[in-house]
Amino acid sequence: MSKNGWIPLHAHIVSSASVVGKRERGGPIGHLFDMSDESDKFGQKTWERAESEMQRRALNLAIKKSGRAEGELEAIFAGDLLNQCVGAAYGLLDFPAPYFGLYGACSTVAEGLILSGICATYRVFDFCAAVASSHYCAAERQYRTPVEYGGQRTPTAQWTVTGAGAYLVAPGAGEVELVAAMPGVVVEKGITDTSNMGAAMAPAALDTLVRFFRATNRDPQSFDLIATGDLGYEGISILDSLLRAEGFDLGERLNDCGMMIYNRTMQDTHAGGSGCGCSASVVSAYLLPKLRSGEVREALVIGTGAMMSPDSIKQGQAIPAVAHLVHLRHGEGQRGGER
Amino acid sequence: MSKNGWIPLHAHIVSSASVVGKRERGGPIGHLFDMSDESDKFGQKTWERAESEMQRRALNLAIKKSGRAEGELEAIFAGDLLNQCVGAAYGLLDFPAPYFGLYGACSTVAEGLILSGICATYRVFDFCAAVASSHYCAAERQYRTPVEYGGQRTPTAQWTVTGAGAYLVAPGAGEVELVAAMPGVVVEKGITDTSNMGAAMAPAALDTLVRFFRATNRDPQSFDLIATGDLGYEGISILDSLLRAEGFDLGERLNDCGMMIYNRTMQDTHAGGSGCGCSASVVSAYLLPKLRSGEVREALVIGTGAMMSPDSIKQGQAIPAVAHLVHLRHGEGQRGGER
Repeated sequence: MSKNGWIPLHAHIVSSASVVGKRERGGPIGHLFDMSDESDKFGQKTWERAESEMQRRALNLAIKKSGRAEGELEAIFAGDLLNQCVGAAYGLLDFPAPYFGLYGACSTVAEGLILSGICATYRVFDFCAAVASSHYCAAERQYRTPVEYGGQRTPTAQWTVTGAGAYLVAPGAGEVELVAAMPGVVVEKGITDTSNMGAAMAPAALDTLVRFFRATNRDPQSFDLIATGDLGYEGISILDSLLRAEGFDLGERLNDCGMMIYNRTMQDTHAGGSGCGCSASVVSAYLLPKLRSGEVREALVIGTGAMMSPDSIKQGQAIPAVAHLVHLRHGEGQRGGER
Repeated sequence: MSKNGWIPLHAHIVSSASVVGKRERGGPIGHLFDMSDESDKFGQKTWERAESEMQRRALNLAIKKSGRAEGELEAIFAGDLLNQCVGAAYGLLDFPAPYFGLYGACSTVAEGLILSGICATYRVFDFCAAVASSHYCAAERQYRTPVEYGGQRTPTAQWTVTGAGAYLVAPGAGEVELVAAMPGVVVEKGITDTSNMGAAMAPAALDTLVRFFRATNRDPQSFDLIATGDLGYEGISILDSLLRAEGFDLGERLNDCGMMIYNRTMQDTHAGGSGCGCSASVVSAYLLPKLRSGEVREALVIGTGAMMSPDSIKQGQAIPAVAHLVHLRHGEGQRGGER
């Protein structure tokens, strides 16, 4: 074990896929997603089943892109926001691989990449997957009110992304390398406003980033992109202030998946995107191609999760948050199947 | 990666602790649990907070027993049945270690032991924890109806255990060794009756056990105890029939944590115990002391989880189940701190 929780990895992302809804397709990076559905239903009768279907399609497509057979898959690390994580449990039923259910709220895909990266590094699994999803309509009725109610949103509220992402991880070098991980400690700073999750998650992102920079002695300037997922506009400005107070100026390289996915002025999404499906789809569609091409050579992805439940908030508890970091690098490894 | 998902491990359980409610204390193995509360409230105002408090106390006590400092803890793998897994998220806030949230329903502690075992085997973490819990009153109002309603139960219904268990895992040999793991594949055989979860989970346990016996070529007779957690009386009889049809006669060594924890005739718990806290507390209180003393030399624990949600059932979906297996062995390793 390395100091402060920093875990060196020697694994790579073989392939990935993203599936999103109509609003995400209409956003500034909409053309980059692999698949979308104008109805947000993906042929299903309920929003929850639609979310499962997005996970199924994302993993299915990622496997196709890898050029490997579904039967080679040795483990799946997956989760979502739905109660009892049914998005993943039902969505991935078709795949005959051992299943590790995760719950990290919006940090789920980062948590899955860390565990996949560890297991691939030590060849516990030679080919494993990290999958996560969220669906706006399913999340609204579970966390807030059904969309049909037309509830008003506060300016700091984030918009749950309808989307899913799947990543296939294998040992050793490749085009996109998993260089290291820094798993997050749960942080709770007294924020009780579920319409301001960015404020609750920013201190968790701070904790993980500061531990990472101190453990590795790396200068933030040596990274081309440091992307949180998903603090939104409110949370990222808090994180930026907190980092500066600790002596870290990340400048323009600090960005957030929840800010990338929607157009702030043209799409009515207030503080930006959130949900497990946000970083899961944005990292696959936007960041990985840049890492493959070398346009981005070193990047940090920090999945940030707000782990309250509607009941815990009603019972007067504050929002516990966690931030899981993965360090990705442009690699010179051999190309696999089609990308 | 070994064949069929079998993962050899070289780690051990340093210490463990169990915390239970009144009914569990009054059962046949009640005297073996470390801690209990007659009110089932553990000093808290809500059942959900009581569940969190059980996790906190269990991990705290396990660390004390280990003789090591809380600050040495390098990772926590934890979960529970509550929506968004808030039992673990809030209960373990006090511990300043990286947190991996899991969701595996009643298989959660086995999933946590597998991931702890992998990470300890490869010294990713030198000292990590698996924690899980459930609370009868919190589970009733989330999955069924508040206990105050006095709803009737069918004979195949299981009783959610009020309990928590925590396990500390470290690399190498010890008194109780983690020899191997066989993570489960999600299995769904069309069972939609949430009052008969044993029937939904038995095929998952069958799948994992048969893969394990075939991959390792081990004779079931070579194990002193093969304990599922928690199929209950209904599920275990189905599993026994299914195993016999596959040519495996486990005989008296097949038992279930949900059958051990309550007195079938004296305690009104129908098909037996269930919930993440059942196997989490029973394995710690009942099985580990036998493995330490050598009374049990080789054991399999198969955590079985039913991963439906109340919503997925209302939407007409069947119950997806998973069964995670850990292979434990009496070791000759050095004693750590107080047990």
